[in-house]
Amino acid sequence: MLTLHDNLGSGNAYKVRLLLAHLAVPFRRIDYDVTTGETRTPAFLALNPNGRIPVIEFDDGRVLAESNAILCYFAEETPYLPTDRFQRAQALQWLFFEQYSHEPFIAVARYWRHYIWDQVQGDAAKEAALAEKMERGHQALALMEQHLEDRAFLVGDSYSIADIALYAYSHVADEGGFELAGYPALRRWLDRVADQPGHVLITQDSFA
Amino acid sequence: MLTLHDNLGSGNAYKVRLLLAHLAVPFRRIDYDVTTGETRTPAFLALNPNGRIPVIEFDDGRVLAESNAILCYFAEETPYLPTDRFQRAQALQWLFFEQYSHEPFIAVARYWRHYIWDQVQGDAAKEAALAEKMERGHQALALMEQHLEDRAFLVGDSYSIADIALYAYSHVADEGGFELAGYPALRRWLDRVADQPGHVLITQDSFA
Repeated sequence: MLTLHDNLGSGNAYKVRLLLAHLAVPFRRIDYDVTTGETRTPAFLALNPNGRIPVIEFDDGRVLAESNAILCYFAEETPYLPTDRFQRAQALQWLFFEQYSHEPFIAVARYWRHYIWDQVQGDAAKEAALAEKMERGHQALALMEQHLEDRAFLVGDSYSIADIALYAYSHVADEGGFELAGYPALRRWLDRVADQPGHVLITQDSFA
Repeated sequence: MLTLHDNLGSGNAYKVRLLLAHLAVPFRRIDYDVTTGETRTPAFLALNPNGRIPVIEFDDGRVLAESNAILCYFAEETPYLPTDRFQRAQALQWLFFEQYSHEPFIAVARYWRHYIWDQVQGDAAKEAALAEKMERGHQALALMEQHLEDRAFLVGDSYSIADIALYAYSHVADEGGFELAGYPALRRWLDRVADQPGHVLITQDSFA
């Protein structure tokens, strides 16, 4: 059986859980506490030298890191990856946008506020960095809002790994202090994603 | 003919120029000065709402942004994208690593030192941020060094878009203040990439 090196609070890990749930691919989870360095031990670094979850481990010992690369691997030849070459590239465009222009602001703001606030609050440098993350996170949300104004999904006419990747942290952006009231198209899209058959919550921990 | 919305100093744009040169795909370049906001004009934002080069524009007006998504698009069914499914996922793993754990530190340190140093020098907050970027940039280079110690290329046995994507900013890391003497395997790999048939320099501006 596949092993997902996982963390139940991580949106990056949730992407993988959500796609595997849609695909009805069974896997077992090993949970790591990322706040106490459990992904920086020698054993974990042997698995992923970059010290990050998620990592997927196959029965034969091969491993794959980077949530969006894992999504691409499992989505191949399924309805979750467009068959059209240009649309496939558009899906990748959204995945790279997510890792460069969305996750570093929204996910990190959420992590700071939701998980390690006692280490951030009162630290002037961190609070200034947080203010910048809020500004750039709102830029990412505004870009998504504009794109979704006349579209049901991010790419083409159907739900794909682009939606899964962007949903992961967008749907918990409020935990990072992002108020979503000003993004009505984005909120409708969040509901549309949550309505997909086989959807699971970020908190769901059993996939037997 | 393809139009590349470009900047000759940008490693992200260079990735696209390098792959298209290998593939002997002709394109014309439009150069933007990213230091003066030329990618934030209404005309440019209509092309790419994220306000970043590179953007590739097809004859029919379709556009694609995100350097690594553009690489994937043009590499499909060429020797620059592995045919094996797992190796293809490994190439994507490196592309996402590049955008999340390499470019934000090495490319930004280079941009600050090489292009806008007068806005950074003496600004205590920026100098502290630069010190953190140097530390995390060295972590990325050390991870590459470890991986390349017993390998000729990043994925499998041949040169791929993973090498192109990581080469772009690694080969000019010295302009960001990164001393590469301590990374001998990485330096041999840089030479190996530069020896590939059809290689072009980051400064090459003519591709007729």
